[in-house]
Amino acid sequence: MDYDVIILGAGAGGYKAAVHLLKNKKKVLMVEKEKFGGECLNYGCIPSKALIEMSESIYYLKNMPGVSIDYKIDMNAWQEWKNKMVSKITGNAEGQCRALGADIIYGFGTIKDENTLNVNGKDYTAENIIIDTGSVPARIPGIDNVYYNREILGIDHVPESIAVIGGGYIGVEIGTAMAKLGSKVYIIEAKDRILPEVNEELSKAVDKKLRSLGINIMTSSKVLSVSKDNYYKVKTENGEISSEIVLMSVGRIPNTKDIGLENVKIEMDGRFIKTDNHRRTSVKNIYAIGDVTTGPMLAHKAFYDAYVAAENIIGNDVIVDYKAMPYVIYTDPEISFTGYVSKNSKKIMTSAVPRALTMNDSDGFFRIYYDDDGTVTGAAIAAPRSSEIITEVSLAVESYLNIKDLLLTVHPHPTIAEGIHDDFEN
Amino acid sequence: MDYDVIILGAGAGGYKAAVHLLKNKKKVLMVEKEKFGGECLNYGCIPSKALIEMSESIYYLKNMPGVSIDYKIDMNAWQEWKNKMVSKITGNAEGQCRALGADIIYGFGTIKDENTLNVNGKDYTAENIIIDTGSVPARIPGIDNVYYNREILGIDHVPESIAVIGGGYIGVEIGTAMAKLGSKVYIIEAKDRILPEVNEELSKAVDKKLRSLGINIMTSSKVLSVSKDNYYKVKTENGEISSEIVLMSVGRIPNTKDIGLENVKIEMDGRFIKTDNHRRTSVKNIYAIGDVTTGPMLAHKAFYDAYVAAENIIGNDVIVDYKAMPYVIYTDPEISFTGYVSKNSKKIMTSAVPRALTMNDSDGFFRIYYDDDGTVTGAAIAAPRSSEIITEVSLAVESYLNIKDLLLTVHPHPTIAEGIHDDFEN
Repeated sequence: MDYDVIILGAGAGGYKAAVHLLKNKKKVLMVEKEKFGGECLNYGCIPSKALIEMSESIYYLKNMPGVSIDYKIDMNAWQEWKNKMVSKITGNAEGQCRALGADIIYGFGTIKDENTLNVNGKDYTAENIIIDTGSVPARIPGIDNVYYNREILGIDHVPESIAVIGGGYIGVEIGTAMAKLGSKVYIIEAKDRILPEVNEELSKAVDKKLRSLGINIMTSSKVLSVSKDNYYKVKTENGEISSEIVLMSVGRIPNTKDIGLENVKIEMDGRFIKTDNHRRTSVKNIYAIGDVTTGPMLAHKAFYDAYVAAENIIGNDVIVDYKAMPYVIYTDPEISFTGYVSKNSKKIMTSAVPRALTMNDSDGFFRIYYDDDGTVTGAAIAAPRSSEIITEVSLAVESYLNIKDLLLTVHPHPTIAEGIHDDFEN
Repeated sequence: MDYDVIILGAGAGGYKAAVHLLKNKKKVLMVEKEKFGGECLNYGCIPSKALIEMSESIYYLKNMPGVSIDYKIDMNAWQEWKNKMVSKITGNAEGQCRALGADIIYGFGTIKDENTLNVNGKDYTAENIIIDTGSVPARIPGIDNVYYNREILGIDHVPESIAVIGGGYIGVEIGTAMAKLGSKVYIIEAKDRILPEVNEELSKAVDKKLRSLGINIMTSSKVLSVSKDNYYKVKTENGEISSEIVLMSVGRIPNTKDIGLENVKIEMDGRFIKTDNHRRTSVKNIYAIGDVTTGPMLAHKAFYDAYVAAENIIGNDVIVDYKAMPYVIYTDPEISFTGYVSKNSKKIMTSAVPRALTMNDSDGFFRIYYDDDGTVTGAAIAAPRSSEIITEVSLAVESYLNIKDLLLTVHPHPTIAEGIHDDFEN
C-alpha cells in the first residue's frame, strides 16, 4: 500500500483528519479537486463572517446616537483583502499538513476499489479511505443564472436590491448583512417561517428583528419562476418581486457524484453516505465525514467527525456523540443553540443584560434548559456574540454539570455571558 | 428591630445582596448617598464599555480595506444616549428592589452601633448590616483640577490629546478608546510596565499593540507635577508632556470615611475593612462586600461577595472561594484571566484563530493552564471578545474538568472560542 490513509477532499473535515492522522504517524495522501479548505474556508463561513462583521459595524455606527458617518465601500478592494485573509487561513492549513508530511494532489479523485483511488489518471492505494467531499448548493430546475453562496460572497458591489430564495441560515445571514449595508432585501421561504432548521422561539426573534431592519420576509411562499432582463423578476405564489440580484439558498446537497461510490457498493442514506457511529461506511475501511453524511452541514460537525474517524483509524474505539453539537446563525440577533430541549428552563431577555445595552443591541433572549435534577441539557440564545458564549453551555452539557454550576460560576461584568449566569435567583 | 438587614451603599454588590435577601423574605433597607448602581453602573464599567464599543467600531472601519469612512462624534448627543442607557439599567435595578419590597433611603448613612444606622438625622435598626460603600479614585496630593473616571466618561468632546497618569486598567481602557477615536494619548506608569496587576505576558501583548496604535507609553516614570494653563503640562522624571486633558487613574481607595466604623470598632486591613471568608467583619452581624474589602475591585467580585454575605445572613454557611475569579481589561487586545497559573500550559496565537482574521483583529494569544493530571487551572487570553469566552475556562476550573473536556467539546466554527479548544492535538 502507498499510504495508510487517503483523504478525498481537503475541506474543513479532511484537513482536521489529516492533521490528527499525521501527528499519529500515519502516512497520508490528500486529494482535492479544487481549493484547500473547501467550501467553508474559501466560499462559506469564513468570507461570510468577514462580510457580516463589516455590516454589523456599519449598522451599529449608523444607529449610534451622537455618531454621524458617511461611508463608501469599494467591494473590489474589500474582496482583495478578503481573498488574502482566506489565503492566509487556507495556506496555513495546507502548510501545516505538508510540514507534517502529507502528500497533496490536486485533481478529481475516484474510488476504484476499497483500497484504490484514481486521480489524474494514476492509482494510489491505502489501508483506509476517508471521504470528505462536502456539498454543493441545491438548484431549482429551470432557474438558472442566479447567484449562489460563491457568487454573492465574491460580489463587486453592494446591490441595490436582492431577492433571497430560501430562508435557511445561508440566505438569512447574507440577507441580514446586505440589509445592514443598505440593500433592499426580500427573503422568500416556502415553509411557514424563516430558519425552519432552528427552534421556533429563535426563528421568531430573528423574524421580528429582520422585519424591523426593513427586510421583506415572505413565508409559505413558493417561487414559481425567475426571469432576468435588466433586473430579475421573481414570481412567487404571493406576487412578483423585482430585484437587482437573486440569491438561491434552498439548501445544499452532498457531493457524491462521480467519486466511484458504486465501485465499492457503499450503502447510501438517501443522498447521503450512510455511516455508523464510528463514521465508518458499509465498506469497513472507508469512512465518510462532514456534509456527505447525515447531520447538520456545519464545519465544526465535520471537524468532530474527522476526529472520530481518525481515532478509529488509529485504533481507538471512539464513537460520535452529538449531544452538544452547537448550531450558530450569524444573523440579528445572532442565534445559537446547543444540547437538547427539556421541560424545565429559565429565560431572561437580552435587554436585561447590561453589556447588550452598552452595545445598543439588546434584542433577543437566553433560555437554559435543564432536567428535573438540575442537570443542564442545552440552551437557546439570541443575543449579540451568542456564538462565543454557547460553548459554556455545551461544556456543561458534555460534563453533566448542574444549573447551579452555571449560576455560581463568576461571570465577568459586564459581558453578554452574564445572561447565562443571570442572577442566582432566577 | 426595624429591618432584617440594612445595606449601606446601593452599588453593584449592595443591589445584588438586596435582591437575594428580598427573595428570601428578608426585610431590607438600602441607604445610598448618591446614585443607585454606584460607581460601576453610573460612572465606571457600564459607560466605559459603551465608549469602548464605539471606539472599536470606528477603529475597525477606519482600518478595513475597501471601506472609507468620514465620521463626526457629537459627544453631547452620545452622552444623552449613554445617560438614558445607564438610567435604564439603574432604574431597572432600583425598580426590582422596590418591587421586591425594599425600602430605599437616599442620604449619607453612618453606623451608630452594631444594630443602628443613622441617615438624614434618623436612626434605623436591623439584625444585620452590610457595608458596600465602594471606592473613590486615589488622588496625588498637590495635583488638582484633573480628570478622573467620572469626568472623562462625561466628556463633551473627543480631546485632541490626553495624558493618562497611571497605566492600570482604567487608564489603559480609556487611553485605548481615546486613541481609537483619534486622540493623541500618553500613558505614564510608575512601575516598569503597564497593567502591573495582570501577568506579564498579557501586559506585554497590550503594550505592543497600544504602541502600534500610536500611544506613547512611558513606564518607570513618576509624575513630578501637573500644571494647567491653556493646556496641561505634565512633568515626569523622563520629560514633559503637553496635553489638553489629564486623566488621573492611579488606583482607587476604599470608601470608609465618616461611615461610623469607629463606633463599632471594626477591624481594618490597612485601608480596607477586614472580613473573614463569610464576608463577616470583626463585628459578627456586620458584613462588608466589594471594593471596601480586599481583593480585586471588580463589580463581579462584589456580586459574588454579595451572594456569600446574603447566604450567611439567610442562615446558609457559604464561604468565598476566589479560585476562578475572572479579570477582564477591555483594551486591545482585550485581555482576560481566570484561575491560577500552573507549570503546564498550551498556547496558541490569536492569529491562528480564523474568526479573529475575519475581524481583522488577530493580535494576542490563548494560554490554558493545567495540572499534571490534566485538570484545568486557569487561562490567560488576549483576543477580541476574550471577556465573553473566559467563563468557559472558569467553569472548567470550578468543576475540576480536564483539558480533554475543553478540547473535545465541540466549539462552533468560526468563533474566537475555538482558540480555547484549539485543535485536539496541541
